Amino acid sequence: MEKTELQVEIPSVLKQTSCQNINGFDCVDYGNGNNPIPLENAISDKESHGESTAGSNMTRLEQQDVIIISLPASPSGLHIGLGQTKLVQHSDRYNPGNPYPQLAKQKQFHSQPILVRENGDRKVVHSEAVRDRRFDPFKTWSGKLERQISNLRGKPTHEADIEAGVSEREEIEEAPGVDRYFDALEGPELDTLRATEVSVLPEDKKWPFLLRFPVNAFGICLGVSSQAILWKTLNTSPAMNFLHISPMPNLILWWAALALILFVSFVYLLKIVFYFEAVKREYHHPVRVNFFFAPWIACLFMALAVPPSIAVNLRPFIWYILMTPIFMLELKIYGQWMSGGQRRLSKVANPSNHLSIVGNFVGALLGANMGLKEGPIFFFAVGLAHYIVLFVTLYQRLPTNATLPKELHPVFFLFVAAPSVACMAWAKIQGDFDHAARIPYFIALFLYMSLAVRVNFFRGIRFSLAWWAYTFPMTGASIATIKYTMAVTNIVTRSLSVCLSAISTFTVSTLLVYTIIHAFILRDLFPNDISIAITRKKPKFSKMLAHFRSSSSDSKDLDSSISKNSEF
Amino acid sequence: MEKTELQVEIPSVLKQTSCQNINGFDCVDYGNGNNPIPLENAISDKESHGESTAGSNMTRLEQQDVIIISLPASPSGLHIGLGQTKLVQHSDRYNPGNPYPQLAKQKQFHSQPILVRENGDRKVVHSEAVRDRRFDPFKTWSGKLERQISNLRGKPTHEADIEAGVSEREEIEEAPGVDRYFDALEGPELDTLRATEVSVLPEDKKWPFLLRFPVNAFGICLGVSSQAILWKTLNTSPAMNFLHISPMPNLILWWAALALILFVSFVYLLKIVFYFEAVKREYHHPVRVNFFFAPWIACLFMALAVPPSIAVNLRPFIWYILMTPIFMLELKIYGQWMSGGQRRLSKVANPSNHLSIVGNFVGALLGANMGLKEGPIFFFAVGLAHYIVLFVTLYQRLPTNATLPKELHPVFFLFVAAPSVACMAWAKIQGDFDHAARIPYFIALFLYMSLAVRVNFFRGIRFSLAWWAYTFPMTGASIATIKYTMAVTNIVTRSLSVCLSAISTFTVSTLLVYTIIHAFILRDLFPNDISIAITRKKPKFSKMLAHFRSSSSDSKDLDSSISKNSEF
Amino acid sequence: MEKTELQVEIPSVLKQTSCQNINGFDCVDYGNGNNPIPLENAISDKESHGESTAGSNMTRLEQQDVIIISLPASPSGLHIGLGQTKLVQHSDRYNPGNPYPQLAKQKQFHSQPILVRENGDRKVVHSEAVRDRRFDPFKTWSGKLERQISNLRGKPTHEADIEAGVSEREEIEEAPGVDRYFDALEGPELDTLRATEVSVLPEDKKWPFLLRFPVNAFGICLGVSSQAILWKTLNTSPAMNFLHISPMPNLILWWAALALILFVSFVYLLKIVFYFEAVKREYHHPVRVNFFFAPWIACLFMALAVPPSIAVNLRPFIWYILMTPIFMLELKIYGQWMSGGQRRLSKVANPSNHLSIVGNFVGALLGANMGLKEGPIFFFAVGLAHYIVLFVTLYQRLPTNATLPKELHPVFFLFVAAPSVACMAWAKIQGDFDHAARIPYFIALFLYMSLAVRVNFFRGIRFSLAWWAYTFPMTGASIATIKYTMAVTNIVTRSLSVCLSAISTFTVSTLLVYTIIHAFILRDLFPNDISIAITRKKPKFSKMLAHFRSSSSDSKDLDSSISKNSEF
Repeated sequence: MEKTELQVEIPSVLKQTSCQNINGFDCVDYGNGNNPIPLENAISDKESHGESTAGSNMTRLEQQDVIIISLPASPSGLHIGLGQTKLVQHSDRYNPGNPYPQLAKQKQFHSQPILVRENGDRKVVHSEAVRDRRFDPFKTWSGKLERQISNLRGKPTHEADIEAGVSEREEIEEAPGVDRYFDALEGPELDTLRATEVSVLPEDKKWPFLLRFPVNAFGICLGVSSQAILWKTLNTSPAMNFLHISPMPNLILWWAALALILFVSFVYLLKIVFYFEAVKREYHHPVRVNFFFAPWIACLFMALAVPPSIAVNLRPFIWYILMTPIFMLELKIYGQWMSGGQRRLSKVANPSNHLSIVGNFVGALLGANMGLKEGPIFFFAVGLAHYIVLFVTLYQRLPTNATLPKELHPVFFLFVAAPSVACMAWAKIQGDFDHAARIPYFIALFLYMSLAVRVNFFRGIRFSLAWWAYTFPMTGASIATIKYTMAVTNIVTRSLSVCLSAISTFTVSTLLVYTIIHAFILRDLFPNDISIAITRKKPKFSKMLAHFRSSSSDSKDLDSSISKNSEF
Repeated sequence: MEKTELQVEIPSVLKQTSCQNINGFDCVDYGNGNNPIPLENAISDKESHGESTAGSNMTRLEQQDVIIISLPASPSGLHIGLGQTKLVQHSDRYNPGNPYPQLAKQKQFHSQPILVRENGDRKVVHSEAVRDRRFDPFKTWSGKLERQISNLRGKPTHEADIEAGVSEREEIEEAPGVDRYFDALEGPELDTLRATEVSVLPEDKKWPFLLRFPVNAFGICLGVSSQAILWKTLNTSPAMNFLHISPMPNLILWWAALALILFVSFVYLLKIVFYFEAVKREYHHPVRVNFFFAPWIACLFMALAVPPSIAVNLRPFIWYILMTPIFMLELKIYGQWMSGGQRRLSKVANPSNHLSIVGNFVGALLGANMGLKEGPIFFFAVGLAHYIVLFVTLYQRLPTNATLPKELHPVFFLFVAAPSVACMAWAKIQGDFDHAARIPYFIALFLYMSLAVRVNFFRGIRFSLAWWAYTFPMTGASIATIKYTMAVTNIVTRSLSVCLSAISTFTVSTLLVYTIIHAFILRDLFPNDISIAITRKKPKFSKMLAHFRSSSSDSKDLDSSISKNSEF
Repeated sequence: MEKTELQVEIPSVLKQTSCQNINGFDCVDYGNGNNPIPLENAISDKESHGESTAGSNMTRLEQQDVIIISLPASPSGLHIGLGQTKLVQHSDRYNPGNPYPQLAKQKQFHSQPILVRENGDRKVVHSEAVRDRRFDPFKTWSGKLERQISNLRGKPTHEADIEAGVSEREEIEEAPGVDRYFDALEGPELDTLRATEVSVLPEDKKWPFLLRFPVNAFGICLGVSSQAILWKTLNTSPAMNFLHISPMPNLILWWAALALILFVSFVYLLKIVFYFEAVKREYHHPVRVNFFFAPWIACLFMALAVPPSIAVNLRPFIWYILMTPIFMLELKIYGQWMSGGQRRLSKVANPSNHLSIVGNFVGALLGANMGLKEGPIFFFAVGLAHYIVLFVTLYQRLPTNATLPKELHPVFFLFVAAPSVACMAWAKIQGDFDHAARIPYFIALFLYMSLAVRVNFFRGIRFSLAWWAYTFPMTGASIATIKYTMAVTNIVTRSLSVCLSAISTFTVSTLLVYTIIHAFILRDLFPNDISIAITRKKPKFSKMLAHFRSSSSDSKDLDSSISKNSEF
């Protein structure tokens, strides 16, 4: 009954909207947001991308019968949604003194670019040069600076409006709670927006590169640097002498990995500087947060892979420097698991948590390689305790673990990472590949086989940058197998070593080709990073409807998603 | 309100049905299903049990005013349930061209034999010689062959009907989802049908022996072969020399166990050949599937128990042969735990999962006994990892573990199995009953004591063949205690060895007596194996009602079960 | 709608009650309960505290217009709640033959003392000398004796009434189910009554000291005796020689701890003798039950801390004596975890469960110190198995663990206890602080740090006697660090030892000061122990309302608590 009413009433509004003003709807709106005539010309935009849209606005105002949707000035009206927006013909209520209403009310706006999609022949009318303020809330300084400028220019005419803007802005800056990530996103990496959700940032447009550059990119560094270790091990292991591997691959891979790490770190540093809000949202993302361990693990890998021609013995202080951020992150992350709240383990457990465990074992291995004694055991112990907890939790697949993918997914290869590194670390600590070291090694081997026989499950999954992070466990298992071959040298172990090394190198090469294709040919390696653009609160029904109406005409999906929502 | 209406309305239909035609209801129905006049005579049944029922049908048609329930021909009408079946007097719509409508629609039919129970003086009218096609869907070849015959004879007149039959048949052949097992069955071994459920196979009749022969029967082999190991250990352990045990018990038990294994394997092989559907359903049963490890574990036990007079050193290739199926099953089962879906661990965890773990340790023990090195550690490692997961999961008793019995149950003795075998395996791998071996041994001992002090909980539980599987952990603990006594020989450990061995032998003897009583005196050792006869889909309410009405007149049970169902 | 009606109707009754008779309400009621005129004088009370209240009753009856609430005599009417109590002026229905109606119906009564709180100028009219029978159900002999006396005097005139009384009495004596504790109490130690609950014992009055003396008090013994071990270790460890600690602190602390243990044990023994019901309720409390391990652990600590001047080597039989009750309790508690029912681990898991684990490791340490071999490994193994289960369960923070505090709480320091004692135990068993011993030590250290960096969370939490139990893990970590320093002696480990010892001593001193302040200045060290006074069944809505109305006038709380309740 209720549902029928909704479907009767709201569409009438939508119809009215769409038949009358779809073409102008979007642009004038942005014009409004971008301080239209005659104020626009007066603003000197600091970032220097913004140009006046007044001209184009005027043009269109003359060309056609445009309807401007003037958003209500009071903050209480900010969340009323689509059904209550007033349709005014040739409105002249421009709120000229408010320099960033668009910024403040940005959440309302994104429903509109979507709406207009209905109209097939829509053109992005405003020129490329127009500074798109929709990204401002994610920028580090934008708001503050603009506000200072605006205040200097003495234009806070509508005080209430500005206050509302500020509070709204603060609301946007506060990252969404972890529940929102689970509610708004889906997929094993929580990177797809659910049908009922709307994005804070425009979905129809390519975002600035930095906003699209995810922390997952450090996964590439993990993949390449672990390959460098593999080839170093193949080169230096007496048991693999029969392969006559030259030291060159290690050297090349190491330099390549170094370049990659420097590049990715530099770009991500820029993101931290210019879009701190986006970084914060990645840090609060229950899957992404684990990737913050990746840069440090990659550095540890680099230290392990350092070619003998560059350095034979590394100084222990490097170990202390690299382990400090890992230790800090662990105090934070493991503490969140235990101390409850939204980020407790039974809620956030997912295979990418292995990234936050594996650092301990890699650190223990490097430390033991350097001849340290207590430090490696410390990290080994911490890793072991938390690995047992995580292993049991993930194996149990508690119904509360919302992120655990229903089907197998490459992320499951992270299961192999911790035990394969742990066995090497223990072998190095103990000075012998003893029974205690073989136990994690064989666990890794079994998990590897268990996943390998299910490999056809992986077909048909969309390529993603995160896959790189799922290659290093395979490489780790290969290296562990070589170490094991050094302890038990026979034809079977040697064949296994060659096999696993080949698979790992083949996988990395394939991924490299895919990555190059996506980066340079398809040019979609960095799609809009929708995971960081979720709204802080559940969108209103009217928005969901609008979003839905615009994106598809299949009413069954909506019904199912609504009823699914109401189940919770 | 609604409930009252249901109790007013539906019974009226039932009353009509029952007062008019109860006697003929069943038989004519089967007559219908069994391709009645004049087609029946033409069919040459391959299994050669089937004889024409036409004669008896005719007789009865003359004798009384029979109502034939003609099932609707369209597939959409197949699930309409009892309330909508049409009551036609002297119907002549026999669908003569459909050779196996009964087979196809068998699910509808089982409600009827139950219904007729209401009528006290019902006789099974169709002669014993009549081939009961109700078991056909579980037979391996029946359907296909019959269909081929039917096709050869060119009688698929009602195409639609046949299509419906085929799709329905496929539906039956597809085993029920794991959720259905949890929904339809109850008890710690999931072997009792819930009040609201109906069985696919006739509940009022003894099924063919093979259908009643469960995979649990391999538990007997486990019990007897582990006793053979116990008596071998008592005979050969220097620490137990003071008992002066002769090698005879070991020899006798070993041959008995061998005979048992051969017999049980042969019978089960017959079941695989003739009732593959039933085997498939056992394999999909969340408790039963673990018993598929039992034959291989029993073989490992046989290899461990081999009397010194027969062989002193077994050849390692036996180990590889025996471990292969265990390894394959593990890849499958553990993969299901981890990879989610319906069979994830948090859903299916129950003590019988220990059977799927203990094979690793038994294998490791046998391998280490044979002098192998890496293989045993591999299985020990795999067993350890999964044992920790299972132990924690079972100890936690998550609310999602539907199968975990509320009360203690003999199945809990399986808790003792893994650690007691693990300690022996580790002691053999390490070559010494060291501290690491004592830890699992003492865990087993504590669990044993913990269960022993609760032994009175076990009283009053119905005897079941599965109990045999719960004796081998006691035997395992006895053997481990003897091994421990060899490491720590004093009066306490010797007494403990004697005590535990006595308890284990006493338990096995008692079970043997019980089994013989049930097998030869009560003749109910193999009751109808209702666990494999659940319907693929939840039965309709009308069927539940019919089932209920026929089986008891206590309306409170129904109400409670209905309301309980609606809670979920 | 419904809620509005409730708020309209019931208050009218309340208003009537409160405006007419608040002053006399309470006293006459108790007069009634205490067998009023003319029976009262005839009763000779065995405990000799009770004096006739008839005089005071008579006085008040003359003084003012008293309304006596006569409770219905039939048992069916016992639970009707407040709204149905009849208001009779100058009632003369005294049920003179019922010797303990108050005892039987005591559950009804507690709502009344609360009700009268509304009236600000209420005075406790009945003299201190009046024996308050409200505590009788918790007394060990009171009821039985009184009943015997009453029966001897031949006064069971109203048979039915007595029967009701007896059954009601049994109901009270039967401890509440574990679910009731979770439903009725809140807070990390489950020691605060929820807003919707009522207490069995009067909340407005100080209870007898024994009733207020909780088993938590043994926590003080744990804190002081562990300090004695610390100072013994500081004195005797060669690695800490540079501190020149005298043996005096150990000696003083040991004697102090001995005195404390004797005192606390004596008082608690009195409680067992005189208020067995209260002890039983503590034993059934899901958090408190773990404190029943505390006395035995404290004794183990005493044996470990014994000053060298008193004894150098303790006799092993002490170990066997002390471990027996721990072993028995473990069989009981761990069995409950595993065997399901209301006390399964996934339900009752909370950090105080560590108390039930740590005894194993302390026992293993003491046994190994005494030179025993197998016993310590046994307890180490049992402890390890259950520690892994508990550690994983607590770390996961399953949504079913109702008691786990949302925020961090001192109870979390118990996490540190088990691994820090375990490392010492293993080091002693193994005879060397080896890698296997370092793993638990480093886990303890990491957990310590993880909690220490969150220490500001602990501010603002109300002091409680239970905190003492949370100091011994810190002390344990200090001792473990000293042992570790003996294995790895350098400036860092020495500083860490000094640091942790200082923190632990400082914490204990601070707690001592707090305890003295609360005991002798604020005189609230032992507040009414509301955890043991919960009703066996959920209170009726009318009682909740009454309770609520009397304790606060904020109707939002009630609404929220009601709606929260209805959610379940």
